[in-house]
Amino acid sequence: MRRKVAILGATGTVGQRFIQILRGHPWFEITVLAASERSAGKKYREACRWRLETDMPNEIGEMTVVNTRVKEVKEAADVDLVFSALPGSVAGPVEEEFAAEYPVVSKASAHRMDADIPLIIPEVNPEHLGIIPVQKKNRGWNGFISTDPNCSTIQLAITLKALMGFGVKQLIVSTMQALSGAGYPGVPSLDIIDNVIPYIPNEEEKMESETRKILGTFNGNSIQPANMTISASCNRVDVKDGHLEAVYVELENKPTIEEVKEAFRSFVGEPQRLNLPSAPEKPIIVREENDRPQPRFDRNAGKGMSVVVGRVRSDPIMTVKYLCLGHNTIRGAAGAGVLSAELMVAKGIL
Amino acid sequence: MRRKVAILGATGTVGQRFIQILRGHPWFEITVLAASERSAGKKYREACRWRLETDMPNEIGEMTVVNTRVKEVKEAADVDLVFSALPGSVAGPVEEEFAAEYPVVSKASAHRMDADIPLIIPEVNPEHLGIIPVQKKNRGWNGFISTDPNCSTIQLAITLKALMGFGVKQLIVSTMQALSGAGYPGVPSLDIIDNVIPYIPNEEEKMESETRKILGTFNGNSIQPANMTISASCNRVDVKDGHLEAVYVELENKPTIEEVKEAFRSFVGEPQRLNLPSAPEKPIIVREENDRPQPRFDRNAGKGMSVVVGRVRSDPIMTVKYLCLGHNTIRGAAGAGVLSAELMVAKGIL
Amino acid sequence: MRRKVAILGATGTVGQRFIQILRGHPWFEITVLAASERSAGKKYREACRWRLETDMPNEIGEMTVVNTRVKEVKEAADVDLVFSALPGSVAGPVEEEFAAEYPVVSKASAHRMDADIPLIIPEVNPEHLGIIPVQKKNRGWNGFISTDPNCSTIQLAITLKALMGFGVKQLIVSTMQALSGAGYPGVPSLDIIDNVIPYIPNEEEKMESETRKILGTFNGNSIQPANMTISASCNRVDVKDGHLEAVYVELENKPTIEEVKEAFRSFVGEPQRLNLPSAPEKPIIVREENDRPQPRFDRNAGKGMSVVVGRVRSDPIMTVKYLCLGHNTIRGAAGAGVLSAELMVAKGIL
Amino acid sequence: MRRKVAILGATGTVGQRFIQILRGHPWFEITVLAASERSAGKKYREACRWRLETDMPNEIGEMTVVNTRVKEVKEAADVDLVFSALPGSVAGPVEEEFAAEYPVVSKASAHRMDADIPLIIPEVNPEHLGIIPVQKKNRGWNGFISTDPNCSTIQLAITLKALMGFGVKQLIVSTMQALSGAGYPGVPSLDIIDNVIPYIPNEEEKMESETRKILGTFNGNSIQPANMTISASCNRVDVKDGHLEAVYVELENKPTIEEVKEAFRSFVGEPQRLNLPSAPEKPIIVREENDRPQPRFDRNAGKGMSVVVGRVRSDPIMTVKYLCLGHNTIRGAAGAGVLSAELMVAKGIL
Repeated sequence: MRRKVAILGATGTVGQRFIQILRGHPWFEITVLAASERSAGKKYREACRWRLETDMPNEIGEMTVVNTRVKEVKEAADVDLVFSALPGSVAGPVEEEFAAEYPVVSKASAHRMDADIPLIIPEVNPEHLGIIPVQKKNRGWNGFISTDPNCSTIQLAITLKALMGFGVKQLIVSTMQALSGAGYPGVPSLDIIDNVIPYIPNEEEKMESETRKILGTFNGNSIQPANMTISASCNRVDVKDGHLEAVYVELENKPTIEEVKEAFRSFVGEPQRLNLPSAPEKPIIVREENDRPQPRFDRNAGKGMSVVVGRVRSDPIMTVKYLCLGHNTIRGAAGAGVLSAELMVAKGIL
Repeated sequence: MRRKVAILGATGTVGQRFIQILRGHPWFEITVLAASERSAGKKYREACRWRLETDMPNEIGEMTVVNTRVKEVKEAADVDLVFSALPGSVAGPVEEEFAAEYPVVSKASAHRMDADIPLIIPEVNPEHLGIIPVQKKNRGWNGFISTDPNCSTIQLAITLKALMGFGVKQLIVSTMQALSGAGYPGVPSLDIIDNVIPYIPNEEEKMESETRKILGTFNGNSIQPANMTISASCNRVDVKDGHLEAVYVELENKPTIEEVKEAFRSFVGEPQRLNLPSAPEKPIIVREENDRPQPRFDRNAGKGMSVVVGRVRSDPIMTVKYLCLGHNTIRGAAGAGVLSAELMVAKGIL
Repeated sequence: MRRKVAILGATGTVGQRFIQILRGHPWFEITVLAASERSAGKKYREACRWRLETDMPNEIGEMTVVNTRVKEVKEAADVDLVFSALPGSVAGPVEEEFAAEYPVVSKASAHRMDADIPLIIPEVNPEHLGIIPVQKKNRGWNGFISTDPNCSTIQLAITLKALMGFGVKQLIVSTMQALSGAGYPGVPSLDIIDNVIPYIPNEEEKMESETRKILGTFNGNSIQPANMTISASCNRVDVKDGHLEAVYVELENKPTIEEVKEAFRSFVGEPQRLNLPSAPEKPIIVREENDRPQPRFDRNAGKGMSVVVGRVRSDPIMTVKYLCLGHNTIRGAAGAGVLSAELMVAKGIL
Repeated sequence: MRRKVAILGATGTVGQRFIQILRGHPWFEITVLAASERSAGKKYREACRWRLETDMPNEIGEMTVVNTRVKEVKEAADVDLVFSALPGSVAGPVEEEFAAEYPVVSKASAHRMDADIPLIIPEVNPEHLGIIPVQKKNRGWNGFISTDPNCSTIQLAITLKALMGFGVKQLIVSTMQALSGAGYPGVPSLDIIDNVIPYIPNEEEKMESETRKILGTFNGNSIQPANMTISASCNRVDVKDGHLEAVYVELENKPTIEEVKEAFRSFVGEPQRLNLPSAPEKPIIVREENDRPQPRFDRNAGKGMSVVVGRVRSDPIMTVKYLCLGHNTIRGAAGAGVLSAELMVAKGIL
């Protein structure tokens, strides 16, 4: 019996990725596509400007989009789980309304830093799901909200988790982020042709605060952020998909470069142990070539769910520096949500 | 009376920029264009695949290219000064041969780190020219070699010079460098479309070692490198001209952000005081918008000779972080050479 | 005494080009910047997202934008002439309102095909200005409307005009058009990276109908469209500025290729004879290299006012084929408007 | 029993595509990888700069490359069939040497227009394989050469074949071709960023002559070229894969647009009837959206083996105009060769 799933914000780029990834999923089936009032009542085919290279699944195109409200979703079909791909600006109250009745797995930023809402990367902090009962009690909800981090944060946090045994003290990160991270229509072509934009609104703040929450400790009642300092500088480059990040980390224990690489290579988490359907065999792939990872060549590693690390080398100021790359709309968005939901199924939360 | 100038490597991309910049120069006139044997004897127009957006000057197109050898240059015309835009791989012995007879201002990397050869940025370390007499004596040359730093180093070093009063202890820099930095044909389009290449051969090493030499102290006899630690991570992006660098600097004195900006804004050097023809009015321009500098919009500031700085902000690990941008083939290459030569004229060295 | 000028749609990309081109113009000075209600009352600096590589002129940045209505423009300053850079969707009635009082030179498409409104390219059909008195009488206006053609049409029509002596029977054209032709924000970067879009709304229709009107005959009372058949296929490519067009023309007389080239080379029009300030010395430049014109290298020829033609060769089906390139926001937009206005001044219409 | 296959030019971009496509092929297995002397003796992994987004198959990486000579190939392993992905400049004599002993299916241009060598598109002219016995007799070879057309020609010819029933009289085509068509390193990034190059050496000539041969008639002894006139204008755009072509065709019978579309939609050839492993279900896919086909969205249709047609509309000069798109290194290169070889197996020629 597959869980019945509603997607909020189904017509946007992240919504489209959810549809693509959930196609033929062994545990989930899409029963409701919800979007803004403008789209409601239309066939998905007509409401959506499909922006993926694979064709829109035919049966999805024929579904009628409903308005993003509990009443309308409830009338449309049975739903066991809600994926939210809503824009951050509207997600806040809408997700709360849905959480009163349904489990909500959200890609939106609205609730990520709420004290009683987990911010989950299944390989990194699955134990933070333990805060859900606290949340339900606090809020008096039948359902709950669980959030996925910002795209650029997820890939960074996965690599940091692998290094936690060495004592991560502080880190500097400079990103080169892909266009699809800005959604659609997103970045005007006239802004990015022959150019780099050294600013992404709120991105540096998210990387700094979310990473500390994700790597923090759950004490049964609350999440204590990790005690590490993070400094980010975020840039947009003319690349379709795949965020590339130059990372410089100070580690308390001073591992050798080979030990660091081995920590990356051998890293696995709950999704691998539980053999979840969307879990990549290797959460982190280490490339040895001196010019990798590269967005176009590495973003689809592990079906877009692996983080690719390269150029691991000593740093004369911090301890180690390296590059990491992840597919920002798969591992960094829809794939993250699906993997989180799979983890919840495996843990009996869904 | 204008100085007569020979350009070595005149058909390459940096050679072309020298020609463009020297056009109508008040102090210099081109009398010899030298290139490899393959080009020698041809009209420049036929020998050169001109890659600049402005047209090749007609009188230059009609000049006959000579082989890059002292004898042939000497036979071709009177020469007071040689600009070398040779590829690093061949520059070493050729420049030495020319230095035996002529002053050589070189953009090539071959001799940059030689102990008795200055590595000059006119705004930063004009006093390093004082080592030229030492060099001439050491080597028994009539002429000498003075070098210009690597493109990505120049713009960084100019910003650091402005901060030296605060005590620069160490810095991390992550670059996003333009295609023209790799010369022509340079980066294959199939490598860079929809991509970033996180590796530029030897670039990180150059940024780390050259910066310390440039900011070092000349004691009348030798140059002591500055005592600071530098860590670079260099990336190639799909931008034609203009290197963008994310910089994180630790300063001993802890200036406010406004003091740092003021240090950038008020920075001037010898070229400004001497009013050299190619000196930009402002070596550093500070932009206050949150999304600048950007390569396409800022690379031509000060006719490509200003460094544009933006997003100056506190750093939780180092002291301050900012972005800087420079035109890599003007301020970072041919313009650097011409400004160095102007400084030498003003100082009576030429 | 310079004519006082208002710009409607001053904050858009074409409006910005008008400002750039009119800076320091000997005959015109900007006294009013008008834009939509959203911008009215703000300083231009704050109302406008400036998208040109040259900086916004400081005095323009300090001007206060007024709403695009006759009353508000009239209150703001004296105006002798109105340039309209309004979006096609709103230009229709607004331009009529202004024409009741002022001469309006419009880049908008709304009135281009109106029977009593001229569609002017100064080098091609200056005699069509003769219809203005007819128009004023028809409409009872103190002012009038004169329009400039679509960007892709202008450069094509200039090359066709040079061939009219050979008898232009029919032509096929396939375009590769730049991003700036779509305005700002215009084409989303996610649509164009690693892609071509083979469709531009209404563009093919405009090229086919406008060209026939421009090349038509004014009989003192009305304009008879030229008797020629045109078939266009329009494509958007990832280029910032500069439309490139592959043209195949059937000519009644069968000139040699050299005669065709000579017709292009020797072509001049009224702007050249009258020595208008914005007139390029050569309306058409013929390149002999086998790989020109290219957008990045040729778009700024003649300060963006020349059309560059290349690869003129025999065609086995039509008579001749060639490529032509023009700067779409200079020769194809703001520069076209300014040159039209200059022509009107020289002819005593303004 | 799978046929044993040698690939000549295995390290180039087309050679890499052959390897990718032949992986797991039911009828062929790679036993020899041949390349230039420089690569001979090395492991493929070391000899090749792999440029595909999918990883190099591990077992291929471990194979030792041999020199491109019959003797060395023969010594290396049994071979039933040779795929040639050699550069045009060297393919001529080398392929003849191999044809003396082996069947050679060649992507190179050297022998395409030889009178007794077939130029095959399996859906279009499978009957031209009938000239192979003539060739073997003429040349006294044990093997033979069969060639595949130029990439931009294949997709055009497939669409024309579907229209042959309407009487194709003449056609004009204007291309926008992808970077991968130029091989590797191919087009320098500095040439194509923010640019279009309106020239591809020999491409227009190939499209004009090859198309007539492909659509010609085999009379049992020789191939009579089709009696149609073709005019091509070829352009390079900043797209990785996928050639887009704007086509204008004159048809003797004047079909309706719907009849033309139906001819495209219903078109199938021998590969579909024989159910060959690489045959796409639909050789031609017709898109109804007004802005398709687009390279990034349509190049992988039918696993890169379908040609995508769109914007089929009346033409006021010719009869019909449309756009067609094909994946230039799959349908236009390696996939073409594999499909040709499959056809030969099915026909008993291999």
